[in-house]
Amino acid sequence: MRAVVLHSHGGPEVLTIEQTPDPDFGPDEVLVNVAATALNRADLLQRMGAYPDPRGRVPEIPGLEFAGTVAAVGERVTMWRPGDRVMGIEAGGAHAERIATHERQLLAVPASLSLAEAAAVPEVFLTAWDALVLQGGLTSGRWALVHAGASGVGTASIQIAKAIGARIAVTCSAGKAAVCRDLGADLVFERSPHDWLAEATATVPGGFDVVLDVIGGDEVDRNLQSVAPRGTIVQVGLMGGGRTPVNVGLLLAKRCSWVGTTLRTRPIEEKVAVTRRFAAEMLPLFDTGALRPVIDSTFPFDRIADAHRHMEANANAGKIVVTVQP
Amino acid sequence: MRAVVLHSHGGPEVLTIEQTPDPDFGPDEVLVNVAATALNRADLLQRMGAYPDPRGRVPEIPGLEFAGTVAAVGERVTMWRPGDRVMGIEAGGAHAERIATHERQLLAVPASLSLAEAAAVPEVFLTAWDALVLQGGLTSGRWALVHAGASGVGTASIQIAKAIGARIAVTCSAGKAAVCRDLGADLVFERSPHDWLAEATATVPGGFDVVLDVIGGDEVDRNLQSVAPRGTIVQVGLMGGGRTPVNVGLLLAKRCSWVGTTLRTRPIEEKVAVTRRFAAEMLPLFDTGALRPVIDSTFPFDRIADAHRHMEANANAGKIVVTVQP
Repeated sequence: MRAVVLHSHGGPEVLTIEQTPDPDFGPDEVLVNVAATALNRADLLQRMGAYPDPRGRVPEIPGLEFAGTVAAVGERVTMWRPGDRVMGIEAGGAHAERIATHERQLLAVPASLSLAEAAAVPEVFLTAWDALVLQGGLTSGRWALVHAGASGVGTASIQIAKAIGARIAVTCSAGKAAVCRDLGADLVFERSPHDWLAEATATVPGGFDVVLDVIGGDEVDRNLQSVAPRGTIVQVGLMGGGRTPVNVGLLLAKRCSWVGTTLRTRPIEEKVAVTRRFAAEMLPLFDTGALRPVIDSTFPFDRIADAHRHMEANANAGKIVVTVQP
Repeated sequence: MRAVVLHSHGGPEVLTIEQTPDPDFGPDEVLVNVAATALNRADLLQRMGAYPDPRGRVPEIPGLEFAGTVAAVGERVTMWRPGDRVMGIEAGGAHAERIATHERQLLAVPASLSLAEAAAVPEVFLTAWDALVLQGGLTSGRWALVHAGASGVGTASIQIAKAIGARIAVTCSAGKAAVCRDLGADLVFERSPHDWLAEATATVPGGFDVVLDVIGGDEVDRNLQSVAPRGTIVQVGLMGGGRTPVNVGLLLAKRCSWVGTTLRTRPIEEKVAVTRRFAAEMLPLFDTGALRPVIDSTFPFDRIADAHRHMEANANAGKIVVTVQP
């Protein structure tokens, strides 16, 4: 098969596509013909050597999500047959023509979605739903605040919040507010030159029940100031840097929680549990129309380096899809 | 009745005992003749003007816990009768001869305890149990780390952890290790000149499932380094200062939670819920002998300023009890 193989780490120029053997698959696993994949911030970090595949596989093939058709199944597989349209998340290996994964980590592609559209679903919708609902406890009536509202996770968050009857405010870079509003965000704070905290405090004086932050850095302190008493800050990324001063007194006074979370490093049983619950609670909402992937752009496999450059320029609103094979 | 009334804030010299009217009590409330009360760090902060009673009552009478006998009951009270031995927590007003509280916030004094011993129970055992078990999820087999192991909360934590089959390590100031070991602590890290983090990492390499911290400040970073993946840091105080740098990357990588908690500011329904559950799960263990209050010293009511000075000198191991009336 053809795959992106990282022989070294660095800029987009290290991304080379070459022939490698098909992955092995065990008796509970499914081999998937990848029709399309999508890009995530983690791919950029991995390319730079800062976020290795926790399984340490050789050769190092990046890529966290995929959609395609079942090529072959292990002898104990009961859920899927060759030809089924599937999508999913893996800890790596999705920027390739074939990937192997446990059958219970796969999701059926909703009938309303093409495989290219489906590739834009798993990572951001699972991340946003897990962070907002499972980790943060978001329910109907409550307020969420999500940073980077026009990002993949942001656009998924807006739709999920509205689909479950919650209210949502987002921050976004200048020029991306319309995308967020069109998706149904109740409040949009354009980050620069606006001070979102003052606006947020004025419009939602009770604070946000759940804050989903992919940024860290300077936002940490503002998150603590804007979260509601007894609320939860869910930290799912660190675009703005690691070590930062925190007002511990505010954490105490508000009796709030600050939770770090990632999908990639979870053990198989946790990944399967969150995937199956997502299948029950979220997947039907793609066919009802409540949820839809927001695709910024689509790149052919051979131009995956350009896809990286596009994300690095922070130029996207929604997902960057990469088509792998017809 | 006689009560400590704060007319101004400052050192122990502002503590004056004077005659004030008995507190009013509503139809669901109980008036208690306070036999004994005990001191908490919060009393020192309140005396200095830094931690006011959230109910803002006038005159300002400090004191968070008490044991005594029921003096009178409101017309709808069903759980208690005059003469019953009771103990409990309130947001203030316990450094007085009488206090009024909701009947469902009261606990029966275990038969094995005198009223002076009982006064040393509510605040630290409820705080430690709520923090370790309800907020932190401590269970049998798991490891807890508790700072200030010889403090009231520390000595309660050690006993609670052992009583439920958990394992516990504590830090303590030099000279207080024996108290902690005698109570059953599995590991004791004398803080100075020892570096507890290096010792903790060497002896419990998997990390602590629950870290209970009353200190904050410099400990915050070490807490994050010593907590287990998926573990919980429960912040119940801030002796070491408020604003502190935090390694957010570690929070993410470990997928851990950092939860702020206080009992004092909770609404009545939460206070009642935690009190009733404590009555069911912890109170029986005083009569079985698994739990017992650790009393450092007992001061008569008229010497409550000396009790403050004793706590301020960090000279106590266990609770400082103040006897109010015979």
